[in-house]
Amino acid sequence: MRRPSTIEHMTDDAPAAGTQLPGSIGILGGTGPQGRGLARRFAAAGYQVVIGSRDAERAAAVAADYAAVGSVTGAANADAAGADLVVVAVPYDGHAALLTELAPKLTGKIVVDCVNRMGFDKQGPYAIAVPAGSSAQEAAEILPDSTVIAAFHHVSSTLLDDPEVEQIELDVLVLGEDRAAVEVVNRLATAIPGARGIYGGRLRNAAQVEALTANLIAINRRYKAHAGLRITDV
Amino acid sequence: MRRPSTIEHMTDDAPAAGTQLPGSIGILGGTGPQGRGLARRFAAAGYQVVIGSRDAERAAAVAADYAAVGSVTGAANADAAGADLVVVAVPYDGHAALLTELAPKLTGKIVVDCVNRMGFDKQGPYAIAVPAGSSAQEAAEILPDSTVIAAFHHVSSTLLDDPEVEQIELDVLVLGEDRAAVEVVNRLATAIPGARGIYGGRLRNAAQVEALTANLIAINRRYKAHAGLRITDV
Repeated sequence: MRRPSTIEHMTDDAPAAGTQLPGSIGILGGTGPQGRGLARRFAAAGYQVVIGSRDAERAAAVAADYAAVGSVTGAANADAAGADLVVVAVPYDGHAALLTELAPKLTGKIVVDCVNRMGFDKQGPYAIAVPAGSSAQEAAEILPDSTVIAAFHHVSSTLLDDPEVEQIELDVLVLGEDRAAVEVVNRLATAIPGARGIYGGRLRNAAQVEALTANLIAINRRYKAHAGLRITDV
Repeated sequence: MRRPSTIEHMTDDAPAAGTQLPGSIGILGGTGPQGRGLARRFAAAGYQVVIGSRDAERAAAVAADYAAVGSVTGAANADAAGADLVVVAVPYDGHAALLTELAPKLTGKIVVDCVNRMGFDKQGPYAIAVPAGSSAQEAAEILPDSTVIAAFHHVSSTLLDDPEVEQIELDVLVLGEDRAAVEVVNRLATAIPGARGIYGGRLRNAAQVEALTANLIAINRRYKAHAGLRITDV
């Protein structure tokens, strides 16, 4: 079940810097629906997953739910940040404070921001405006010594966390400045059966990808669906 | 070739207000690539298309290119605005001024805004920020007596305007407040063979749909594609 540690089509050569797939994945805020769903799929694909939470005991309790799926442990967010690659799945409210606190632990790592800045009112979902433009750009400002990638915004946590769902029709848009890191996360996306990871542009174009979650929620409500995106002609 | 004038599944009853498909479609800025591509597909589906331009002679010359496809004429934008339904396909630069000038002619009509607010620099495409939040919201502010719908942002003008392309893998996201008008534009989208029109949320969620064009351009450049969107599970 353990994944190969380098990208398969590169095995003829020494792996390029940054292209190694992670052995362990920490998920900050991993006890929420998005974090749990990703934990399930990453663990099933053979990664060692550390679910992080403000409350280490709660993280351990959630991790126990996935004992039969693969290697999933629970820890405080600060310990989950020690993994090879770190996914940020916290609510937007605590995003900046947590990353500021954990910046030293995240130095030199790929940090995958999948935070959706969503608000809801009587008219339904909408994207919350943030000073940096997007959650991912905010992360990049706070973490200049990490490689920030934006991805996994549009996954349905319901489908991800349902063990009966064997395939998910979904392309994961992966945004970032570092091509090797984008490749790593593109490959990580294939841990979700049926999904592809597709480069979606630079971080300055992350705002609309994050905000599009509001449209997908509106679609879900209108059509009683778990809508996802596919990119055609790719 | 003439389309039925009411939505088929409603033929048992009198048509609800606003659900009638248009007989004629005016395309403001219709001599540009997006406008030409839409003109081709709308005309092929049996609509009477009026290509609008600042320069009526230029509009007539472009319309002549589509004489074999269907009913396509050229006119000044002010005359194209007299059609049953009006599509706005101008560059963002002239958007507000043109709609302000034509507001009286657009009263009571469905106005479909498909303007992409795009800029390009050395790093590639990006979305231009606008005070109203989106081009569609700007149109709605300028045209309080029209029914503004946002749609057709992600169509590849290259594929649309290529007569050899018989099917386009594409869902057209259709945003607006008025459900009947959304339905009309959903149906209009099916003039593009292979395409579906799908409700994509309220106009306040149009900004990210417009801006996502930058991501699709980035995808096109990386993968040498004419990328489009499909919404899964709908």
